[in-house]
Amino acid sequence: MRKIEHLGIAVKDLGKSNELFSRLFGQEAYKVEKVEGEAVVTSFFQIGDVKIELLEAASEDSAIAKFIDKRSEGIHHVAFAVDDIYAEMDRLKKEGFELLNDIPKRGADHKLVVFLHPRSTNGVLVELCQDMGGGSSIK
Amino acid sequence: MRKIEHLGIAVKDLGKSNELFSRLFGQEAYKVEKVEGEAVVTSFFQIGDVKIELLEAASEDSAIAKFIDKRSEGIHHVAFAVDDIYAEMDRLKKEGFELLNDIPKRGADHKLVVFLHPRSTNGVLVELCQDMGGGSSIK
Repeated sequence: MRKIEHLGIAVKDLGKSNELFSRLFGQEAYKVEKVEGEAVVTSFFQIGDVKIELLEAASEDSAIAKFIDKRSEGIHHVAFAVDDIYAEMDRLKKEGFELLNDIPKRGADHKLVVFLHPRSTNGVLVELCQDMGGGSSIK
Repeated sequence: MRKIEHLGIAVKDLGKSNELFSRLFGQEAYKVEKVEGEAVVTSFFQIGDVKIELLEAASEDSAIAKFIDKRSEGIHHVAFAVDDIYAEMDRLKKEGFELLNDIPKRGADHKLVVFLHPRSTNGVLVELCQDMGGGSSIK
């Protein structure tokens, strides 16, 4: 794992949270993006070389809606940048970690992503992501 | 806020979690440190230029023990590096954020730290930290 790529924060109201985090960070979100496959609307802030991704549920059955129902708003996941997501998935499976999806999915911000089940990672929802611009492509 | 300095993860058993996160990151924790004032034992991993700090409660009334009782293990806080913690505290108070301590405390890893109350930050426990080696000293 090369670096933390982003930190995902579950929010109820993206408009209000964009305003709140703009005041916190002293800067505006630089983009808003809907991720159809995950039923979320996201916005991004850049702090140093790490992004903060706010996530609002776009439907009642999205994972973000379920997370907020259960745990309320707050930090939802941490994403690590990897150079070769397939190699890293193989390595982690051999180490005993449980993947939430066996095939990487298309995430926000032009990324291929896979999640590890928090029950295998000390309660932390870990995402691996690889930029679709380089490295291996979707298999 | 200059960068994410570290991400804090609450764990029940630092020994077991050090082993687990070593397998996850493919590297060992580079140090273990007890922070007397916070009643925690911490360990640190380095991923890119961000640290991952594991926190185990050193007493039953530590904030980490209470967090785990309430929410179980998982991501506990995110810390942002600032150059002048007093200036940033002033700015955030004026923006309506609620500080958990009015005077910065001595944290792990040679830092001056202050926390923002999660009820003012969308459920996210935000830490500001300034390296004690440079910038303004303890007032």
